[in-house]
Amino acid sequence: MEIGFIGLGQMGSAMAANLLKAGHVVTVYNRNQSKADGLVAAGAKRAVDAAGACKGQLVFSMLADDAAVEAVTFGERGILAGLGPDGIHVSSSTISVEMAKRLAAAHGEAGQRYLSAPVFGRPEAAAAAKLFVVVAGAPAAVEICRPLLETLGQRVFPIAEQPEAANLVKLSGNFLIFSVIEAVGEAMALVSKAGIDRRAYLDILTSTLFNSPIYATYGALIADRTFEPARFAAPLGSKDLRLALAAANDLEVPMPVASLIHDRFLRLLAGGGDKMDVAALGGMALEDAGL
Amino acid sequence: MEIGFIGLGQMGSAMAANLLKAGHVVTVYNRNQSKADGLVAAGAKRAVDAAGACKGQLVFSMLADDAAVEAVTFGERGILAGLGPDGIHVSSSTISVEMAKRLAAAHGEAGQRYLSAPVFGRPEAAAAAKLFVVVAGAPAAVEICRPLLETLGQRVFPIAEQPEAANLVKLSGNFLIFSVIEAVGEAMALVSKAGIDRRAYLDILTSTLFNSPIYATYGALIADRTFEPARFAAPLGSKDLRLALAAANDLEVPMPVASLIHDRFLRLLAGGGDKMDVAALGGMALEDAGL
Amino acid sequence: MEIGFIGLGQMGSAMAANLLKAGHVVTVYNRNQSKADGLVAAGAKRAVDAAGACKGQLVFSMLADDAAVEAVTFGERGILAGLGPDGIHVSSSTISVEMAKRLAAAHGEAGQRYLSAPVFGRPEAAAAAKLFVVVAGAPAAVEICRPLLETLGQRVFPIAEQPEAANLVKLSGNFLIFSVIEAVGEAMALVSKAGIDRRAYLDILTSTLFNSPIYATYGALIADRTFEPARFAAPLGSKDLRLALAAANDLEVPMPVASLIHDRFLRLLAGGGDKMDVAALGGMALEDAGL
Amino acid sequence: MEIGFIGLGQMGSAMAANLLKAGHVVTVYNRNQSKADGLVAAGAKRAVDAAGACKGQLVFSMLADDAAVEAVTFGERGILAGLGPDGIHVSSSTISVEMAKRLAAAHGEAGQRYLSAPVFGRPEAAAAAKLFVVVAGAPAAVEICRPLLETLGQRVFPIAEQPEAANLVKLSGNFLIFSVIEAVGEAMALVSKAGIDRRAYLDILTSTLFNSPIYATYGALIADRTFEPARFAAPLGSKDLRLALAAANDLEVPMPVASLIHDRFLRLLAGGGDKMDVAALGGMALEDAGL
Repeated sequence: MEIGFIGLGQMGSAMAANLLKAGHVVTVYNRNQSKADGLVAAGAKRAVDAAGACKGQLVFSMLADDAAVEAVTFGERGILAGLGPDGIHVSSSTISVEMAKRLAAAHGEAGQRYLSAPVFGRPEAAAAAKLFVVVAGAPAAVEICRPLLETLGQRVFPIAEQPEAANLVKLSGNFLIFSVIEAVGEAMALVSKAGIDRRAYLDILTSTLFNSPIYATYGALIADRTFEPARFAAPLGSKDLRLALAAANDLEVPMPVASLIHDRFLRLLAGGGDKMDVAALGGMALEDAGL
Repeated sequence: MEIGFIGLGQMGSAMAANLLKAGHVVTVYNRNQSKADGLVAAGAKRAVDAAGACKGQLVFSMLADDAAVEAVTFGERGILAGLGPDGIHVSSSTISVEMAKRLAAAHGEAGQRYLSAPVFGRPEAAAAAKLFVVVAGAPAAVEICRPLLETLGQRVFPIAEQPEAANLVKLSGNFLIFSVIEAVGEAMALVSKAGIDRRAYLDILTSTLFNSPIYATYGALIADRTFEPARFAAPLGSKDLRLALAAANDLEVPMPVASLIHDRFLRLLAGGGDKMDVAALGGMALEDAGL
Repeated sequence: MEIGFIGLGQMGSAMAANLLKAGHVVTVYNRNQSKADGLVAAGAKRAVDAAGACKGQLVFSMLADDAAVEAVTFGERGILAGLGPDGIHVSSSTISVEMAKRLAAAHGEAGQRYLSAPVFGRPEAAAAAKLFVVVAGAPAAVEICRPLLETLGQRVFPIAEQPEAANLVKLSGNFLIFSVIEAVGEAMALVSKAGIDRRAYLDILTSTLFNSPIYATYGALIADRTFEPARFAAPLGSKDLRLALAAANDLEVPMPVASLIHDRFLRLLAGGGDKMDVAALGGMALEDAGL
Repeated sequence: MEIGFIGLGQMGSAMAANLLKAGHVVTVYNRNQSKADGLVAAGAKRAVDAAGACKGQLVFSMLADDAAVEAVTFGERGILAGLGPDGIHVSSSTISVEMAKRLAAAHGEAGQRYLSAPVFGRPEAAAAAKLFVVVAGAPAAVEICRPLLETLGQRVFPIAEQPEAANLVKLSGNFLIFSVIEAVGEAMALVSKAGIDRRAYLDILTSTLFNSPIYATYGALIADRTFEPARFAAPLGSKDLRLALAAANDLEVPMPVASLIHDRFLRLLAGGGDKMDVAALGGMALEDAGL
């Protein structure tokens, strides 16, 4: 199948590589074009702008935020301009519910189709095609994309017909990650100040009731106070939580723990933590206890 | 080995039965004596008071709260009075850090020994000898008890020499359970108000990043709004969280999410929720969103 | 002086009337034109669109929200189009910091001037010319407007040269009002559940340390649970708090009490409280205590 | 009238001096006896223990906390032992609801009477006889004490027949003070980070809606970041808030803002702020914003 792929950061380039490996014809585009070199060497075609990556029926985008998606979609030589009738734009970026609605509306008006297909997983998981993909949009379009999404991940979850539902699931999932960090931070501050070893405590947690990788991964970062280099940077995490709260505001859904964590993100960033991992939220709990 | 066992509720009677099955001589006592009948029929001896269950070197207690432990320990025919020199009192109840310190001091003064050995797991896990046991106290006493604790559970975690450390771990673990309930409640309120099916959403969570039984179990109760009958009743949960916060106050450890949840427990109880499961915290998040 | 006045709600019509009484030539405009009738009968001129109210050097706008201000300013026959070179737009509406920046920039580009001059006070205060006016913008423009602002209020506070500073002061002031409502609600719930009369309690508060009208006014509404009709409607209050939090987010300022109250507003609105006064926040505290 | 006065700190000695000045026969006692010297020089009699200060029908106590009141009341030569039948113990200390109940019960069993009569006001107000006194207990006893309380303060508020009600009012009043500090801290952080002068902002607040001395006093301390020397020390404030939350817990009253502030007190104390004024809570808001 002929596919475009826009956005070749750590996640995007791993995903594009997997599509290529599966035998698809992949045209890639990235604002900073040198990021495409590896993929081109591996057989991908290079486009000079976003529109140029829209020769086939389907184009993926995987970008940092709303602004980047807006630029490659609505820009002069953007996806809207490049994609043919019935063409499908699959957005895997973590963007706002609001932006997903705008994209769906714009592609609809242009006689094109739009899917939101955000993913859970880190760059390693993307490289290993072990992502989890949540997809939402018109069922016919979802069916066309499904084999490709299955190429990218270990499991695909179609969730709703409104594309923005998938973005909301993604944003809420990130909130749940942050809630684990905050709660584990508080619990560790408590036991740690009483003289209990944090690693021994974490071993109990993850061997018993909290045996999911999220607890193990973030618990270890908090126990050891290792917040740099960031794998999931605090400014990105803060942005995601703000988008979740913006959706909550529009839907009139109170989320007191989410709000509490958002204020802690602001404190972290105001204090110079913009190079830190989101795990540093947990470090603040230790610090606030005088540890 | 000759063992006493005091407190024959759902948890205690299952634990005592496993000690009996392992070939130990077990003398049981419960305030409401009829609860001992099944164990006596299975070979246990019956004591008529707490002191009477302290014939051997070691006595377990598994009771509802500080007041109950205080009564069987310090009462006229209590454990302190019944236990011989060097005797060991193993308390598996979820009690306060303060009470654990008092017990340790009192047994120490009496020339006896005290261990805190709270457990994680429900009555089913107790019956199947699948509990997780956190134990703290003097290493020599821990070594004596360890084979018995291994009879009761799938894994034993010695954590510290001060007995109250084990209670703090238990209390903090319950806080982490409540934090999952609250966060999942908020996330479900968000996606649910946007029209996403709560069970489908939970399936995504538990198939991906949150693959621990805590998320599955409590997530299902929240998704289905099934809060009665209670397996972990709200008044008990609220009590545990209050004990965690009391320890946090004494140690000067801020725990903002714990405080937030404690206020939600108070609201639940003030609103008549004392028969409900702790999962009802998550139900409040749905309710607050107008769902 | 020849003045325009746009937006003739309860506040705006009282303010325009005072300018008229002071001898100024006032041209008024309101989308629903019948609201201008009383002022026209009292000597005001009627404009048929916003541009038509911009014949003099200075035009006031006093509208409900960002959207309304955007419409009368940027619309086809709007203030930007109607105002002459050096003309001054004085916005007394409670709008976002963001919108104030946009207005300042747009008027600047058009060779015009922009001031933010939000007011504290209810319609009664507006009618009695007892408002408090916070004004920000270029000093020269402030000096021109100052006599007019003094006509409207009992005191004028020039605060900064960037117009949006005045909006931030206004938004933060409303947050402080909500914080009083929330705190008094919690305190009243506490003493009231202990059997103390709420009115007697309020009398103590307002006779001693909290002798400001805010405590007296909102305390009485909470004590009596009188939340309708709204004088300051919950949806407007919620909007103001959201704007304060948006500014806090942009400036990276954590405001945990503001966030907590915002979630309570969402709960109030999700529960059907959109006709209620902001005082109903305090009523929720009573309700949450089971009162 | 013959009166005893126990507890001669800054507040107590000022109160005892006013009773003396009004012509009463005052016998004073303080653990550190040198604190009585000034009063004795002015005509007071000196007692060598608490019981010795209970020769008349009525004895006041004004002490730091529950433990101090417990010691002078229940100790061997304490108030219970010294006071005659029908004697009245008037406790003006800020103590827990629980302790007030215990005192009332113990005096009742001893055929004596107990009143809670906590005061609002600083040492200067005590010296000037400008305190506000909230009194609760049996009406007959209140009537006997009333002229004395009027000697101490500018106004006396009888609030209920259960003595502990007065303590609850006092504790809730201190919570309201802390809520002002926290809210003003957050608001100042917001405007201050936007470049607005904090003193100019405070002037607007206190000239308009928030014209009570609490806002002026604490607002100035926050604006200037003057947190030492403490007039109302953080450890005492934290203790009072903990007592309010303990009462709220017993009554099942959620107080989310109170809980939030309590966690901030813990952070302040864990960070070494035990010499600081409670106003330092507001300083944390500035600090969290990176100011």
